Amino acid sequence: MPRTLHMNAFVMGVGHHEAAWRHPRTAEHRVLDAQHFVRLGQIAERGKLDSIFLADGLAIGPNIRRNTLAIFEPITLLSAIAGGTSRIGLIGTASTGYNHPYTLARAFASLEHISGGRAGWNIVTSGNLQEALNYGLDAIPEHAGRYRRAQEFVDVVTKLWDSWDDDAVVLDVAAAVFADPDRIRSIDHVGEHFSVKGPLNSPRSPQGRPVLVQAGSSEDGKELAAHYGEVVFTAQRTIPEGQSFSSDLKGRLAKYGRNVDELQILPGLVPFIGSSEQEAKALEREFTDLISPDYALGQLSAFFNVDLTGLPLDARLPELPPESQIEGNKSRSTLVRQLAAKGDLTIRELIGQLGGGRGHRSIAGTPEQIADDIIAWVDAGAADGFNIMPPYLPGGLDDFVDQVVPILQARGRFRTEYTEKTLRGHYGLDVPSASESRATTSA
Amino acid sequence: MPRTLHMNAFVMGVGHHEAAWRHPRTAEHRVLDAQHFVRLGQIAERGKLDSIFLADGLAIGPNIRRNTLAIFEPITLLSAIAGGTSRIGLIGTASTGYNHPYTLARAFASLEHISGGRAGWNIVTSGNLQEALNYGLDAIPEHAGRYRRAQEFVDVVTKLWDSWDDDAVVLDVAAAVFADPDRIRSIDHVGEHFSVKGPLNSPRSPQGRPVLVQAGSSEDGKELAAHYGEVVFTAQRTIPEGQSFSSDLKGRLAKYGRNVDELQILPGLVPFIGSSEQEAKALEREFTDLISPDYALGQLSAFFNVDLTGLPLDARLPELPPESQIEGNKSRSTLVRQLAAKGDLTIRELIGQLGGGRGHRSIAGTPEQIADDIIAWVDAGAADGFNIMPPYLPGGLDDFVDQVVPILQARGRFRTEYTEKTLRGHYGLDVPSASESRATTSA
Repeated sequence: MPRTLHMNAFVMGVGHHEAAWRHPRTAEHRVLDAQHFVRLGQIAERGKLDSIFLADGLAIGPNIRRNTLAIFEPITLLSAIAGGTSRIGLIGTASTGYNHPYTLARAFASLEHISGGRAGWNIVTSGNLQEALNYGLDAIPEHAGRYRRAQEFVDVVTKLWDSWDDDAVVLDVAAAVFADPDRIRSIDHVGEHFSVKGPLNSPRSPQGRPVLVQAGSSEDGKELAAHYGEVVFTAQRTIPEGQSFSSDLKGRLAKYGRNVDELQILPGLVPFIGSSEQEAKALEREFTDLISPDYALGQLSAFFNVDLTGLPLDARLPELPPESQIEGNKSRSTLVRQLAAKGDLTIRELIGQLGGGRGHRSIAGTPEQIADDIIAWVDAGAADGFNIMPPYLPGGLDDFVDQVVPILQARGRFRTEYTEKTLRGHYGLDVPSASESRATTSA
Repeated sequence: MPRTLHMNAFVMGVGHHEAAWRHPRTAEHRVLDAQHFVRLGQIAERGKLDSIFLADGLAIGPNIRRNTLAIFEPITLLSAIAGGTSRIGLIGTASTGYNHPYTLARAFASLEHISGGRAGWNIVTSGNLQEALNYGLDAIPEHAGRYRRAQEFVDVVTKLWDSWDDDAVVLDVAAAVFADPDRIRSIDHVGEHFSVKGPLNSPRSPQGRPVLVQAGSSEDGKELAAHYGEVVFTAQRTIPEGQSFSSDLKGRLAKYGRNVDELQILPGLVPFIGSSEQEAKALEREFTDLISPDYALGQLSAFFNVDLTGLPLDARLPELPPESQIEGNKSRSTLVRQLAAKGDLTIRELIGQLGGGRGHRSIAGTPEQIADDIIAWVDAGAADGFNIMPPYLPGGLDDFVDQVVPILQARGRFRTEYTEKTLRGHYGLDVPSASESRATTSA
C-alpha cells in the first residue's frame, strides 16, 4: 500500500506571496479580519488536511511599510478558529526565547481543552535583533545558547503536560473529589534557565501533549527536532536535497530512542494552480510583477544581517558575511545563499524566486502536475508530505483543496474523511500516557 | 435621569459557590467544556450585560482535591467566546508579576482584533507562593515591589498599544503601502524592570486600548486603580463600606488628572434567586450544606498564610498573624478578618458566609429584592454597578438575566439594547486616540 501523505495549510495574511495583498485575487483588508482565518480553517477542514499552521514573530518586520503580517498572535487566533471548526489541527508558532515555559505550557493546554485535542506547537528560538530589543536584550542571543535554552524549555513544558495523570480528574460529586492529588505531582525542575515547581494548573489534555513541531534546519535545529520533534517543517528545493535532509534527520532519531515513524518531515510548497501549465506560470508571473523591490531587499538584508537596500537590481549579490557570523535564522540563510550561487542569479531574479515563499519551493502547474510532484517527493523519501503555502488566500487554498486534494485522494494517497478527532490521530502519532511519558523522560 | 448601571457576568467553572459542582443544578463535567463558557457569554449577551469576566491564577489551588477551577487560560478562552458572541465585552485576568509586557500587550491586542474591540484586562499582581515557585522565585515578592512592577508594566503596555497611530494602517494597494512608518514608532522604554524598544507588532486596536480593570483594594492597589483603572472590581459588604471605598478611590483620581466618570466601581455580588425570599434562602442553604469543610479550611488558610486545617469547626478563629505580614492578597485578608471579628463567627459560620463568593457579598431573595438592592447601592453612591457572580452556572446566570435584568430595564436603570459595539462603548468610556494618549502619558 502506498504511503499516505500529511498536509498542513500554512497560512499567512492574504497569502504567502509577498505581493499577495496587491493582487486582484485577494481582498487586502482581510489581513485584519479574524473571520478570514476562521474561514481558512474551514477550507482546510473541507480538504481533510491535517492542520492549519500559523507562523509568528515578536517584532514588526524589517519593512513595516510593505508588511501586512503583524496582526494576530497565533494561540489566540487558533482559539478563535477552534470554535468554527471541529477536526482540523491547530498549529501555532511560539518562541522558547521570550516566553516562560509555565505560561506557554498552560496556553497550549488551554488550546487543547478548547479544541478537543487539536493543538500543535511549532517551536522556534527567535533569531531576530528586533525581537531581542523588545525583550530587554541588546543583541541576538548566540545560536547555540538559544538552542540550549530551547532544549530545557521543551523539557519543562513536556514535564508540565505530564504532571497530571490521564485519570487524575475524578469528578466524584458524592465524595466531593474533583481530582486525585496522588495522580498530580510537582515537577521540581531546576535547570540552567528555569526553576519550575509545578504541577501545571490544567488537567492533562485530550492529546496528552500537543504535537511538537520544529522548524529550524541548522545542526542545532536538527538535534532539537530529533530529540523532540514529531513534525518538522523545512525548506527543501530538490528531491536529492529532501532525501539527504530526511535521511540525516531520521538517522538521528535512534540515539534518542525514537522510531522513524514518530517524525513527519513536511517541506514547504507554494502552489500556483492553473488549468494549464502556461496559465499557472502566467499567474505566478502576475504575482512576481507586483513585488516591490525595496521590500524584497529589506527581507534579503534581514536574512543575511547586512544592508543590501539601494543595490542595483541587475547586479549579483555582493560578498556576504561568512555563515558562522549568522546568529539568526542559519538554515534559511544557507538556503538563500546556495540558491543565489547555484543559479548565478541577479538580485532581481533572486527576489523573484524568493517572493512566493521566502525560500520555500514554488511550483506552477496543473492540479495533476502538482499532485504528481507531491507524490514523487514522498515516493522518493524526500518528504512525508508538505506544508502547503498558498500564494494568495483564500482562493489559493480553495483551489488546492478543490483541485489537487481530490487527485491525491483518488490515487489513495490522502484521506477522504477524517478517521480521528485529534491532530495526533491525523498524523498517526500515539497519544502518550502521562505515566509512560514520565518514565521515558526520566530514562 | 437616574444613573444607568454597569454589570459584568463574572463566571467561574460551574458557579462561584465552592460546592456548585456538587449541586443538582449543575453538570460537573462542564468545568472541562469550553462550549459551556461560550454559552455563558451568549447568556450574558442576551441580558445585555457589559462583559463576561474571567479570573485567573498561575498555580493549582491550595486543595486540588476539591478545586474545579484550574483549566482554561482566560485570553485563549475569551478568544473562543468571541467567535460565539458579537457584543459582550471580554475581560480576562492576567498577572503583571509573571508575564512580559510585550507578550501581554500583543495577546490583548490580538483579542481586540479578534473580537472587534471588546477586550478588557483585569490587572493582578499575583500574591501566591505557589505561583512564585512556578516562576523561578522562592518566596512571594513583597507587596509594594509587586505594585511598583505593576505600575511600570502597565505603563509599558499602554505605550505599546499607543505605538501605532489610529490611521497608521494605510492598505494602499496601488502604491504598495501597508502602513505608514511615520505613524508607527518605538517606545524606547528603559525602566527598573523592563527594557522594551517597540513598536508593538500589531496595529492599533478598535478600542485604542483594551479597558483596564483593577481588582486589588489595598493602598497600593487603590493607587494603581486611581492611576490606570477604568473599572474596579472590589469586595464590599455594606453600603457604608461601599460609599467609603468609592469616595476614597474616586478622591484619588484628581492627582492623576482624571475625572470621576472615567472609573466605574463594581463590587462582586452573589445572587441566590427564588420566587419567594424563603425559597431563595432555602436554595442558598442547599449550597452551604454541600461545602466540604476541609476545602474551605484550606481556602481560609491560604487567605491568612497560616495552616488552619484540622481546627474544630465550632471554634472561633485563632489569633492570626498581623496584617503587615500578609504579602499575598491583603485586601481579601482584611475583609475576612473583619467579617470574622464583627460577627463573632465560628469557623463553620465563617465558612458558610465565604462559600458563595470567597468574601464577596451574597444576597438571597426575589428578583425584585435583588433589583432593589442593586439600585439602592448605586443610588447611595456605594457602587456604579456590580460584578454579578452566579453561585451556579449556567442556571444562576440564566435566572439573573431573565428575572432581575428585566426589572432593572423596566425601571430605566439598565440598557434594553446595546447601543455600542465595543466594551468602552458599553461602559461609556472614551476611545483614546494614540496621539492624545501619548501626550497624556508623557505629561
